[in-house]
Amino acid sequence: MQKVSSEKQNYVASGFYAATRDRELKSPDLEVNVLMSMENVTSRVMSVVTPGMSDQNAFQARKAEIAKIEKESLDKTGLRSDVVTLYSGGEYWLYRYKKYTDVRLVFAPEQGIAFFGGDPDNFTYPRYDLDMALFRIYENGVPVESKDFLRFNPKGAHDGELVFVSGNPGSTSRLDTLAQLEYQRDSWLPLVIRTLQRRSGVLKEYSSLGTEQAREAKTKLFLLANSLKALGGMYNGLQDPKLMARKEASEKEFREIVATQHPEYAAAWTEIAAAVKQMASRLDERFALSHSSNLTGTAQTIVQYVAEIKKPDGQRLPGFHDAQLGSLRFEMFSPAPVYPALEQVELADDLSYAQQLLGPRNAYVKAVLEGHSPAEVAAKAIQGTKLADPKVREALVKGGEPAVDASDDPLIVLARKMDPFSREFIKWREDNVESVLTEAGQKIGKARFAAYGKSTYPDATFTLRLSYGTVKGYPMNGTIAPPETTFFGLYDRATSFGFKPPFNLPERYIARRDRLDLSTPLDFVNTCDIIGGNSGSPVINRNGELVGLIFDGNIESLVGDYIYDIETNRAVAVHPGAMMEALRKLYDAPALLNELEAPAQSSVATK
Amino acid sequence: MQKVSSEKQNYVASGFYAATRDRELKSPDLEVNVLMSMENVTSRVMSVVTPGMSDQNAFQARKAEIAKIEKESLDKTGLRSDVVTLYSGGEYWLYRYKKYTDVRLVFAPEQGIAFFGGDPDNFTYPRYDLDMALFRIYENGVPVESKDFLRFNPKGAHDGELVFVSGNPGSTSRLDTLAQLEYQRDSWLPLVIRTLQRRSGVLKEYSSLGTEQAREAKTKLFLLANSLKALGGMYNGLQDPKLMARKEASEKEFREIVATQHPEYAAAWTEIAAAVKQMASRLDERFALSHSSNLTGTAQTIVQYVAEIKKPDGQRLPGFHDAQLGSLRFEMFSPAPVYPALEQVELADDLSYAQQLLGPRNAYVKAVLEGHSPAEVAAKAIQGTKLADPKVREALVKGGEPAVDASDDPLIVLARKMDPFSREFIKWREDNVESVLTEAGQKIGKARFAAYGKSTYPDATFTLRLSYGTVKGYPMNGTIAPPETTFFGLYDRATSFGFKPPFNLPERYIARRDRLDLSTPLDFVNTCDIIGGNSGSPVINRNGELVGLIFDGNIESLVGDYIYDIETNRAVAVHPGAMMEALRKLYDAPALLNELEAPAQSSVATK
Repeated sequence: MQKVSSEKQNYVASGFYAATRDRELKSPDLEVNVLMSMENVTSRVMSVVTPGMSDQNAFQARKAEIAKIEKESLDKTGLRSDVVTLYSGGEYWLYRYKKYTDVRLVFAPEQGIAFFGGDPDNFTYPRYDLDMALFRIYENGVPVESKDFLRFNPKGAHDGELVFVSGNPGSTSRLDTLAQLEYQRDSWLPLVIRTLQRRSGVLKEYSSLGTEQAREAKTKLFLLANSLKALGGMYNGLQDPKLMARKEASEKEFREIVATQHPEYAAAWTEIAAAVKQMASRLDERFALSHSSNLTGTAQTIVQYVAEIKKPDGQRLPGFHDAQLGSLRFEMFSPAPVYPALEQVELADDLSYAQQLLGPRNAYVKAVLEGHSPAEVAAKAIQGTKLADPKVREALVKGGEPAVDASDDPLIVLARKMDPFSREFIKWREDNVESVLTEAGQKIGKARFAAYGKSTYPDATFTLRLSYGTVKGYPMNGTIAPPETTFFGLYDRATSFGFKPPFNLPERYIARRDRLDLSTPLDFVNTCDIIGGNSGSPVINRNGELVGLIFDGNIESLVGDYIYDIETNRAVAVHPGAMMEALRKLYDAPALLNELEAPAQSSVATK
Repeated sequence: MQKVSSEKQNYVASGFYAATRDRELKSPDLEVNVLMSMENVTSRVMSVVTPGMSDQNAFQARKAEIAKIEKESLDKTGLRSDVVTLYSGGEYWLYRYKKYTDVRLVFAPEQGIAFFGGDPDNFTYPRYDLDMALFRIYENGVPVESKDFLRFNPKGAHDGELVFVSGNPGSTSRLDTLAQLEYQRDSWLPLVIRTLQRRSGVLKEYSSLGTEQAREAKTKLFLLANSLKALGGMYNGLQDPKLMARKEASEKEFREIVATQHPEYAAAWTEIAAAVKQMASRLDERFALSHSSNLTGTAQTIVQYVAEIKKPDGQRLPGFHDAQLGSLRFEMFSPAPVYPALEQVELADDLSYAQQLLGPRNAYVKAVLEGHSPAEVAAKAIQGTKLADPKVREALVKGGEPAVDASDDPLIVLARKMDPFSREFIKWREDNVESVLTEAGQKIGKARFAAYGKSTYPDATFTLRLSYGTVKGYPMNGTIAPPETTFFGLYDRATSFGFKPPFNLPERYIARRDRLDLSTPLDFVNTCDIIGGNSGSPVINRNGELVGLIFDGNIESLVGDYIYDIETNRAVAVHPGAMMEALRKLYDAPALLNELEAPAQSSVATK
């Protein structure tokens, strides 16, 4: 919504509906990937590791083989091809996706209703959000005619009903060792929270300068608040001594089995503990080298891209493998608007934070500042750069390493100064942390396979997963949360807070309130085990009908990254009844309703 | 409501409204006490304790003096006179009350709306209850013409507004020592919770026998569920190591001040620790000797009453002092209905529980059972007793000790067997626990006075207290709870649970929904520091207008017995706007509305 908006036309606030196809809005850098096939390539990936090989060599060998598999598959099928690691390396699978890049926005409601309750209500339930959007996917300029699609069922799913969620959960840490959870609790989470809080403070200050500044920073602020609440929930969850004790007990039991039955894997836990200790020792650098300024990030990507693509695939930095290049270029050349004043403020703070974390005598700090202040360096780099124009980026990449090396664009110059530090750190982390964690994780994965088989499911990896559960309330704050909410509740919460933001309602919700059947279900909860990345996932009933759209988890689900608790962990979804009711009575969208209600075949994707 | 109901006419379910005065319902045993004066009698109470007196003797001396003060006052003024202990014995005050016993019910809504959400929503917020009742107070057969009353303000109080709560909070343990809190956490609360859970189980089984049985047990079950949730909240609160650490730290600081500045009080903490240890050692007996059967309790009161009133006031058992006799007789002779089948089941379980707690060879168990089973003893006692008739009770008491000693009423016979054990236990507890706690508590109270003065307020004692605060939401379950709720929310919650009990609504709320302005505020929260006993307290604005009726605290307030936390502790009240809206549009009560809206003077009491 932000990316199709402008200063003149703010669709985030106003919402959007294309009554006819010619008014649909093309998304500047949104792509849709459809999983076409899955192939078990475990034995091929494992085959390149020979006995006696060092961890680093084994890691590099597997990495090279994975890149080879992906490249072969891409060449052969033309499909995006990713090798996915499951069970901490217990299995490897090749996933092939058909990619659509012509994705057009058909309908989205105002943010005021999609995100009613704002940051306070985010990650909580009972909830009253119409968090939905409808896109149409095109190929060769015409809508895709899909034979396989989910039929809308406006009745939704009732209390206790079996439902499925199909989606791409990002990542979980369920199989992590106790040492890793302690690292999360004591090192990673405190510093990442501190960093994001700082960035959030910078954006809030920028927003206070005016309406346009607030609009520019809004999406980023939302994402930061979202992350901070999630990280805070995880952090709080890990403070629970019962949870840690449970983890400790299950790890102890598992290690005892391994010690007697699979002694060859027994060292994995101490190796992991040593690796996370290493990582903790350079964590400040990890954050000092990262960017909140998007444009600086893009500049650094360009500098690295032109150098990396010259190398054999297996030797490249992570993120630059052949199979990833399509999406990377799509992102690098995105025509999404750039806000220079915001970028400058962010870059200045990134540099200032690096100075604070590493001290003024640190080599990186000296190299990027060269005796100037963070504000001066940021002003020079952002005010002088031409990278806001996607064509300039394209030309630079087209010119390859010579063009980038010769560029006097001040942001490229700055990115070149940052580059060696970034490379050294990435290499060090790969050799001393990631390779160890991968190798040891694989040992644990194998040991777990041997001990427990597939009776547990693998950690989430952003790949397609079908989870199951039931529509169900849960004990909450001394009472019980209902299985669903209604439009009544939306008006209760808005009125209860005197319509003060973020509890204000879009104008049509006030003017047309009497048209609505207020008893229509709005949101509902179910026990499906989801995690970040599942937003937009369809909820499906046993007849394969769409009965909801996942958009959040409750506050009790935040610790779900480490452990799933069916008593209180809930996925929060929009009810299709509310979608239909709103489209009909508030948005005057009869054409769209007809398409959703009785599609012979559909090219509409819901998110 | 239960006490004015019968099998034919269940006002608990149907609600009640007397459109004319002659239809008002006289409450069988409800009395209203109006505080007329307060007098500081500390020096008089203290004066009877001479240096070198033992704790027991000092306690008895003060007890005798207190009884004397109360008796003198009663004789002189005819007003109920209670000496109240404040600041753990730091001060004593004489409170005089004018008592009204002709209290008539004018209006009460259905329990379905007064207690909407039932046990799950009890002690929680956001809340949607119209928990109110209107009584008219009579004296000499005519309504009392009160010149001082609180005018209704249907607009209520807005977010952030200063409000006051005037009421009678029961008891808090804010000044208790760490040893007392540990006793609560480790001994008292676990056993009282276990006992009430058992009683609740007995009542649930009885309720399952039929509609009439369910009606009979309903109020008791409600009170038990209410207590269990409160006790559970206190128990959970005390499990919080941070709270205990805070208590420990403040006690340590205080004891250090006392050790240097007032060494004469320094032993109090070890004395209290020893006394609670004593109490813990006989806690099983405390519960074995208590009754869930009301009629058995009344029988025991009669047996003790006739013996106690013969003694000088100062030597009587607690509860039998002259000043307390009026209310005691009112209760003893209450014409409220007795349910013999229920009494029998309860008595059988009380005896069975005593057997389980103390073992079959315990002297009390042997004395009351005499070789029979608890069921047999209970059947004989309840089926043979005539005490269900208040006239029989009156006649027995009138006959005094000879009549009671000669009675062959089997429940009186049983109560006579219980009596010596009860007396021995009460005496032991008074000598070994209560007197020590009172004495040591008084030392701490004096030391606290010396160290901190009246900068802290005294523990609650069921006496009139004015507290202050503001209307204010609070952080809750990851988001924020609103300052008020509306009728919209009532319908949301009912619909969300599919109108399943306890989320079903009385018929008129369904049939007349469209008449209501659903945005009318229903309940609201404020920061006034209340505790059990405050239910029915008026919330008053700075103009002395009634802007709410307290009916609950939120779940976060349960630990308030030990510590008040302004961040999350909230009093929950009914909004006067909802009362007016419901009386006008749902209950057709224009006469009552007129009285409330523009009373020249009022005889209506709100609870």
